[in-house]
Order: sequence, then structure tokens, then C-alpha cells
Amino acid sequence: MAETRRAFLTAALAGGAGLVAGKAAAQGDPAITELQPWSRYLGDGVDARPYGKPSRYESHVVRRNVAWLTADPISSVNFTPLHELDGIITPSGLCFERHHAGIAEIDPAQHRLMINGLVERPLVFTMQDLMRFPRENRVYFMECAANSGMEWRGAQLNGCQYTHGMIHNLVYTGVSLRRVLEEAGLRPNAKWIMPEGADASAMTRSIPIEKALEDCMIAFRMNGEALRPEQGYPLRLVVPGWEGNMWIKWLRRIEVGDEPWHHREETSKYTDLLKDGKARRFTWEMDAKSVITSPSPQAPITHGTGPTVISGMAWSGRGTIPRVDVSLDGGMNWYRARMDGPSFDKSIHRFYFEFDWDGRPLLLQSRAHDSTGYVQPTKKALREIRGVESIYHQNGIQTWHVNERGEAENVEVS
Amino acid sequence: MAETRRAFLTAALAGGAGLVAGKAAAQGDPAITELQPWSRYLGDGVDARPYGKPSRYESHVVRRNVAWLTADPISSVNFTPLHELDGIITPSGLCFERHHAGIAEIDPAQHRLMINGLVERPLVFTMQDLMRFPRENRVYFMECAANSGMEWRGAQLNGCQYTHGMIHNLVYTGVSLRRVLEEAGLRPNAKWIMPEGADASAMTRSIPIEKALEDCMIAFRMNGEALRPEQGYPLRLVVPGWEGNMWIKWLRRIEVGDEPWHHREETSKYTDLLKDGKARRFTWEMDAKSVITSPSPQAPITHGTGPTVISGMAWSGRGTIPRVDVSLDGGMNWYRARMDGPSFDKSIHRFYFEFDWDGRPLLLQSRAHDSTGYVQPTKKALREIRGVESIYHQNGIQTWHVNERGEAENVEVS
Repeated sequence: MAETRRAFLTAALAGGAGLVAGKAAAQGDPAITELQPWSRYLGDGVDARPYGKPSRYESHVVRRNVAWLTADPISSVNFTPLHELDGIITPSGLCFERHHAGIAEIDPAQHRLMINGLVERPLVFTMQDLMRFPRENRVYFMECAANSGMEWRGAQLNGCQYTHGMIHNLVYTGVSLRRVLEEAGLRPNAKWIMPEGADASAMTRSIPIEKALEDCMIAFRMNGEALRPEQGYPLRLVVPGWEGNMWIKWLRRIEVGDEPWHHREETSKYTDLLKDGKARRFTWEMDAKSVITSPSPQAPITHGTGPTVISGMAWSGRGTIPRVDVSLDGGMNWYRARMDGPSFDKSIHRFYFEFDWDGRPLLLQSRAHDSTGYVQPTKKALREIRGVESIYHQNGIQTWHVNERGEAENVEVS
Repeated sequence: MAETRRAFLTAALAGGAGLVAGKAAAQGDPAITELQPWSRYLGDGVDARPYGKPSRYESHVVRRNVAWLTADPISSVNFTPLHELDGIITPSGLCFERHHAGIAEIDPAQHRLMINGLVERPLVFTMQDLMRFPRENRVYFMECAANSGMEWRGAQLNGCQYTHGMIHNLVYTGVSLRRVLEEAGLRPNAKWIMPEGADASAMTRSIPIEKALEDCMIAFRMNGEALRPEQGYPLRLVVPGWEGNMWIKWLRRIEVGDEPWHHREETSKYTDLLKDGKARRFTWEMDAKSVITSPSPQAPITHGTGPTVISGMAWSGRGTIPRVDVSLDGGMNWYRARMDGPSFDKSIHRFYFEFDWDGRPLLLQSRAHDSTGYVQPTKKALREIRGVESIYHQNGIQTWHVNERGEAENVEVS
């Protein structure tokens, strides 16, 4: 820290001294010598923006899709701009999207939730009915099982928005799924549930009753306001720590059964093909993972040598993240990162590592440790066990190469 | 709880039985009998909304200003729709606004922060310079000192958006003010700071050095993304627990001095006039306070008798809120509310109280207890000590009268 301070001081003094000696003017920095327009003219009043939006200078901070990834944007994905964000909460307007039939635009007054199957009393709830249950507020990450899946076969997409951007972390307000199922009354042979979406794809997944009764939520708010349409407005199933595809959006029905349904999204999709041709099925839990969001290919170092802040995120479907390690040399030496901000179970955690950059190339890596003792593996270790056909659940250590100019790119280290 | 469950069961069974007997159809509920358009047609794809926005069915959830309150919307206020929100985080687009010269639209590349006055080294920072300091993430409420000020003279505005809506609660990412001041080096006689805004009003306030060094932040992000223009983009001073006017937006300069400046905003404004004509000055800390957000005048009970959820928020400038009491009869009997969601120092807390409404009129009140042992007072108790001229710092217990139809209004109880 002492070294960092000294180095920073030198950097800052230049500007300071320049100002005191009036050099800033000579250096022609109008930001100091001239009154800016926003200091000279009145801005918009309080009646101008009933619902606010970001500054026009932030127009580059957007979700991005990759046209060649899918045949049609109606059944496709876009990515959260992780390299532009900080802290642990994902802004509602920047949460990645994955649709199978586009965004359903549901009128909440016409929306119903049905509970049927192996229950004592099949029930149908209006939104207002659900608002009469006790509410809970929880912070959870939601990650697509295919997040970082392109990396199975080596470094591919160049930027953490694309390699790790199928994740978001939100505060949910909703009701306990257990409480709602108790209302319908589970029969003794109730072993599985099948939530179903109201969009044109009628997405369904099979979830074991133990998880349904443990911590699942029927959520109607995210970050304090109603769910966004692309996140399942007016109702979404929250399945903490488990793959995003199971978090059924536009939730309209929950069928209770005695065995899994083996629908498309849990057989031909969302199973991990291994080297020997066999497949791992029901790989629901998301393993511990981390990524450095800045510097990264979309967020290069532009300030030159000296004090540099590494910012990154880590998460685990099994608990909290008490520790993250950072390496500057591709995993030869590791330093303990500084965790900052709230720590919640099955939530994104923020870590930082401050260091003095000497201008030499870096191989940046981060390694998450979760509260179960699990340590994030290398891609190499993952491939040795699972091969490269999996598509899903690639949680290996990510490497960014930073060159002398501070530019970063996605690379592999053997 | 048992009683609530039984009552709910009855309510829910109707719908359930109806469905099983096919009565839903007879009752003509197209939401059950007919496939909705969003289940029949494809929606927008992932390329349609680079930055998302709420559903069109939520267009009523907006900030609102009151035209007659001020002479011009350029120097005015609008209010957070608290009655439509839940949990503890305020959505970025719904945070109340208070401007003195409208919204400054600052180009961050042209923005500078100057530290001058009683320092060893006057410094000027670019945004990039500030990004090189260690960052911290904190959750804090920010409340205008005039929030609920209209209530000093009795029940006025009808709705918690207007009576309590000059508050928001956000996750801030930024750097420690202490760390930045240390960079400049404080002189021995440095006792106060004067932050200054870059908008056309050049807002300034005097802040004692003890607070500046304790927990103030120079923030550049809220809820993960860049500050919104109306919240001070690109830089805002965060002064945890203290009145909102001190949280200088569009922060461009911090002068260090040896005494307060006694500028307009801390003399003719933001001082509390007492009965005897004397004024309380430097009343910075916001006292513990709470309000029931639903039911409330803008959020009546529309579901009739039976299981009813009371949702509310509580906060204190001095710490956390371990306890909130709720009364249904204007303060004669109190019940302990259920606290839910994260609890942070100087942050909004969410509380709930579930009960079976028998359809009789209610006088709803909430009473916050903070971690220092302070208990939120009645308006009557406040007026006895401070009179009714204060305008600022009215944190008395709020009362909503709910009639047999579930409609609520702002009332006074003696």
C-alpha cells in the first residue's frame, strides 16, 4: 500500500503542481480554464423524465448479441456488459436475455398461475392472490448453463461481456414456492415439479421436490420494481444457485408429478456430453466461478504504468465466496484479492486487487474459493475429465493477456 | 399464522374448486379458458432492446412532481413512487430528484475534481485518475431534509409518494473521501470541507472534517452502473445518514477550510426555525423514521377481507433498524413487524405485517426503533418541542385511515 500511495502521489502531483503554477492553462485544459456549458446553462427540470435513463455519454453500455451465434434473434441470447459494471447488483436494463420465442408482453390482469397434478387442491392464482402471501427479499445470481461454453475448445470470444456475460445478480421480491405448494397440498407421491412459461415456447423443466421446497421463490419484483418483460414479467421462478434455464420466466403453471418429464430442455439440451459419448444429466448446480472484468479485452488499461485497479466478480451455486486469488503471470504466483461489498449466499461477490503496473505484459487470472472449500479449476483440468463437447458448465479459470500498451485479449495458458 | 392459512385456504379453494369443476369457464375467465396472445405469437428478439425498460403495463410507476409546490420545475423536486416498490433497493430510474438549476448533462471526459484550500498539494483529478484509487461498495439511503416537511402543520399530501417520497436507497461504488484528501494532504488547521457542484447553481455545503474522514465517499456508480445524470453523473459526494442536500451532485471541487462557510443552503435554508424564533443549525443527521407503503392512499386494499399484507420501510441516519412496530388502531395497540431482506447501516430496511382484515376501518401506523435505542416519535411529540415552522426533519409517525372499502387517506390522530 505504501508503495502504491507514493506512486499515486507522483502521478497526482503533476496535475496539482501544474494547476498551482497555472500550467494547466498553458497545457490548455479547457476543463480547468473554461466554465463548461453545464455550469453556465440551466438543465432539464423535474418534469422532464418521469422514468430516468442513463447519460447519453453511457450509450456504449448496452447488452450485445452475436448475430452468428444463432439463426434468429427470436430464439437467441444477448450479453450483460460486465466490463462496464461494478459492485454486485446488475442494473435491470442490462441483464442478459435468453428467449426461445421472443419477449412475452403479458398483461398482468390477464395472467394466472395454476398449480395442478399431484396436489390435494388444484389452484389458480391471480397476481393479486399471490400478493396476499408473505413476501421475502433475496439476492441471487442467475447464470445460463452455457455461459463461457464457447471456451471449452479454447479461447474464443474476445471480452468478458461475451465469455461470461450470461449472468446477472438481482434483489428479488416474491413469495416462497414452498408456501404456495403447501396451499395446494402435496400428495405423498409428489416428487417433482414442472414449471411452465406462458410465452410461445411454453418452456418447461423438471425440478426435484426437495429443491422446490428448500429455497425456490415465485418472484414478481427485481431490484425493487416489477420484473422486466425480458426477465419474465409478471412472474418468474427463482431457483437459487441452479442453471438459468430452470428459472422459468412468464410462469403460468406448476405441475406436480412423481418423476421427471425428460422434456427437450433437459435431454437434448442442458446435458453435458462427455468424451466417451455418455452424458451427464441433471447437472443443475452452478459451480464456483470468477472472472476479471477490468482490465479485460473491452476495458484495456489506458492510464499507463503505476497504480492500477483490478476489478472482478465471483460466485457459487453452493454458497458464498470467502476468497478469491489473483495471478498476474498466468497462475505461477497467486495473490489474495480484497473482497468488497455485501456477501450473500448464491450471489455475485466483488473482488479487487490494487497493484503498481510496471508496463510489462500480464497474464491476468482469478480463482474463486467457495464456502464449501471448492476451488475453481483450470480449463485444462476440466477438459481432462469432461472433454470439449460439453457446451455447458464451463467454469474454468479465465486468462487475459495484457500487452505493453495495456490492451487485453482472451488467451489460453497450458 | 394458522388463522391466516385457514382464511387463505378458503379464499384460494374457490378458484381451485371452480377450476376442477370447470366452473372457471362458466365464470368466463378467458385468462384460463383461452390461450393469450403472448402464448400464441413470437415476441421481440434479443436485438430489440440494448438497454431495457419496464413493461408498458407499469407506465403508472413513475416519479411525480407537484406543480404548485415550486415556481419552476428547474428548481424543484419530484417524488419516488414508494407505494409501487418493495424490498430495499430503489430502481435507478425512479429515484426522486431535487435540482436547483436543472439536470447538468456532464461530459465525463471534460469533468475534473479539484481539491484545494488548506491542503499540502492542491490536486486536480480526471475521472480516470479517480478510477485508480481503491474502490468500495456501500448501500445507503439518501433523504431530503424536507421529506415529510408538509406534515408539520397536519396531514397534507395524500399518498406516501408525496409525504415520504424524497428518499432513495442505492448501492454506491466509489472511492473513500478520506483516501483522496490524504492524497492532497490536510493541513493542521483543516477543520471543514466545502464540496461544490458543477451545475449552474454551483451548490455548496459545509461539512465538518470528522464526517469527511469517517465514511464519506466520492461515488461514480449507483446500482452497478454509472450514476444517472439527475443523481450527479459523473460524480456525487455520499454523506451517509446525513441530509440529502449535503450529498453534492456533479461534484467538481472540494475546498478545505478552518470554519464553516455559512452559505445560503445552510443558513436561510436547511435550518429548523423553532417556536421562540430561534433556529436549530447544522441539523445534519436524519432521525429514525418509517412509513407503511402499502396499503396507503395510492395503494388501497382491493381484495376485500381476509389475508392482507402490510409492507413498509424504515431507516435511520444513526445505524440499523432492528425493530419496527405496527398499529392497526392509531397507536393504541402495537404489534412487532417482521423484518425482511438485507440490513445495512444507514440503509432502508423492509418490514412486513401479515394479518386477516375483518373489513372494519383501520388506523395504520408504523414506529421504527434504531440500533441506538431511539424510537420514532409521534408528530404531536415533535410539534410540542419544535413547533410547526421547521419545514425540515419531520420524522413523526405517519397515519393512514383505511375505510370499509379499503380506501386509504392521510390523517392525523391526536
